[in-house]
Amino acid sequence: MTIPVLERIGELSALLDAKRAAGATVGLVPTMGALHPGHATLIARAAEECDVVCVTVFVNPLQFGPNEDFEAYPRDLDADVRTATDAGATMVFAPPVTEMYPGDQSTTVHVSGLTNVLDGLARPGHFDGVATVVAKLFAMAGRCHAYFGEKDFQQLAVVRRMAADLSFPVEIVGCPTARDHDEVALSSRNAYLNAEERAAAPVLIRALRAGAELLARGESDPARVRRAMVEIVAAEALATCDQAEVVDPRTLRTPDTLEGEVVLLVAARIGPARLIDNMRASTS
Amino acid sequence: MTIPVLERIGELSALLDAKRAAGATVGLVPTMGALHPGHATLIARAAEECDVVCVTVFVNPLQFGPNEDFEAYPRDLDADVRTATDAGATMVFAPPVTEMYPGDQSTTVHVSGLTNVLDGLARPGHFDGVATVVAKLFAMAGRCHAYFGEKDFQQLAVVRRMAADLSFPVEIVGCPTARDHDEVALSSRNAYLNAEERAAAPVLIRALRAGAELLARGESDPARVRRAMVEIVAAEALATCDQAEVVDPRTLRTPDTLEGEVVLLVAARIGPARLIDNMRASTS
Repeated sequence: MTIPVLERIGELSALLDAKRAAGATVGLVPTMGALHPGHATLIARAAEECDVVCVTVFVNPLQFGPNEDFEAYPRDLDADVRTATDAGATMVFAPPVTEMYPGDQSTTVHVSGLTNVLDGLARPGHFDGVATVVAKLFAMAGRCHAYFGEKDFQQLAVVRRMAADLSFPVEIVGCPTARDHDEVALSSRNAYLNAEERAAAPVLIRALRAGAELLARGESDPARVRRAMVEIVAAEALATCDQAEVVDPRTLRTPDTLEGEVVLLVAARIGPARLIDNMRASTS
Repeated sequence: MTIPVLERIGELSALLDAKRAAGATVGLVPTMGALHPGHATLIARAAEECDVVCVTVFVNPLQFGPNEDFEAYPRDLDADVRTATDAGATMVFAPPVTEMYPGDQSTTVHVSGLTNVLDGLARPGHFDGVATVVAKLFAMAGRCHAYFGEKDFQQLAVVRRMAADLSFPVEIVGCPTARDHDEVALSSRNAYLNAEERAAAPVLIRALRAGAELLARGESDPARVRRAMVEIVAAEALATCDQAEVVDPRTLRTPDTLEGEVVLLVAARIGPARLIDNMRASTS
């Protein structure tokens, strides 16, 4: 037995209103589908904390660049519904693109500051697409808790800021990155890797560890921390380093001198995939 | 006796949720205060159609340009609460600026297409400010009917588009422009006029009438219709024509040839005020 799958915005909105009117709390888990055990932990957490859990499955064209993997992005709704059901979801919302964007989408939600760094530079327009689709999901869902993985650290920061700035009655819950047996962050894009490439993927977490160790040993120069991470990625023949940064977790900017809590971020291309990972760390 | 005045977003949002959970429908009337009988007709219509009516009073700094009248804009909350009460409102939401924008507002809602014409050219950034604050009000208010005057024709088009594009569960209700005994459109900015200037204000509606008459007589050239309106405003010594346009009501663009339903718009400076007005018309 699986849970109901809704396709219409009006249907979702009315159903969640009715549940809340009956006293239920609502958990929302926005995803692009291709659900893996990382998503399952978000859903399970939502199910622990909320009476009703809606998993949204929508590969959002707005957040893909022209040369990115919108077409190739893995889609398997039946499998997603089973995963969502098993993890404790109450319903899946899987709208067609024509339901989410019935005509020309004229309205864009833009978050400044947090988006012109890191992946915002590597993927122009990406975070406008994210902020816009998440604002739509929040508008139709209404009051809820919304669960996002910390793996997409910048996305989480952008969504938090957008929700606060636009006064959505939505509490954003960031959840720890789920990892495979070799500590590679779970990601739908890991499915793009062949066996050899997958074996190279732990290079991201190794780079982050090396950065964190430098910090723990008292390093306060961000350039040195970055260089250490870049060198580790460079040593892996199948990986190309796209980004290695150490930033203030609130501003996402690199401070002149590292002090206190920071976050390390790495992006690397391995085969056809662009993988990202991050780790909180602090100076000794 | 007057109705309650709320200042906190969380308070408003929780109260409207509770009303809806108890089965009430909600009407929202977003205003910048300085309520006049035009606002009162919006409130009265909302009270006819909805169980609970919330009038918001907020002079939104985001929608004023650096040389515009943000500081001078008339504010009189006590009078507004009396007007809202008399017209049938249930509550007033009058947040301080620090409640609406507690820090740097990083998030902007932008509607393309409809905003780079007409007042969007005359007032750069104005409609981003409008779209952003109205999105905030819709987010905190939740499912409702929202009432806007047709006097601000472009604003109404922008708000409709924004609400649809962002999937807010909000039905936008456009209401006919309320007019004074001499048919001048009611506006909070009429308060800026001295007696002589006020006597000059009917030039806007005269210009619109002249345009509509030309259309009724079969004129299909937008340049001629515009010229007729400009000439009428120019003949009034106290007025300076800022804009005289004839556009498609859906796109807000001027067609090459006028056919069917159009809307005429005029903006003129009279004394310290920039007044706007519009009229639907159709070719014969």
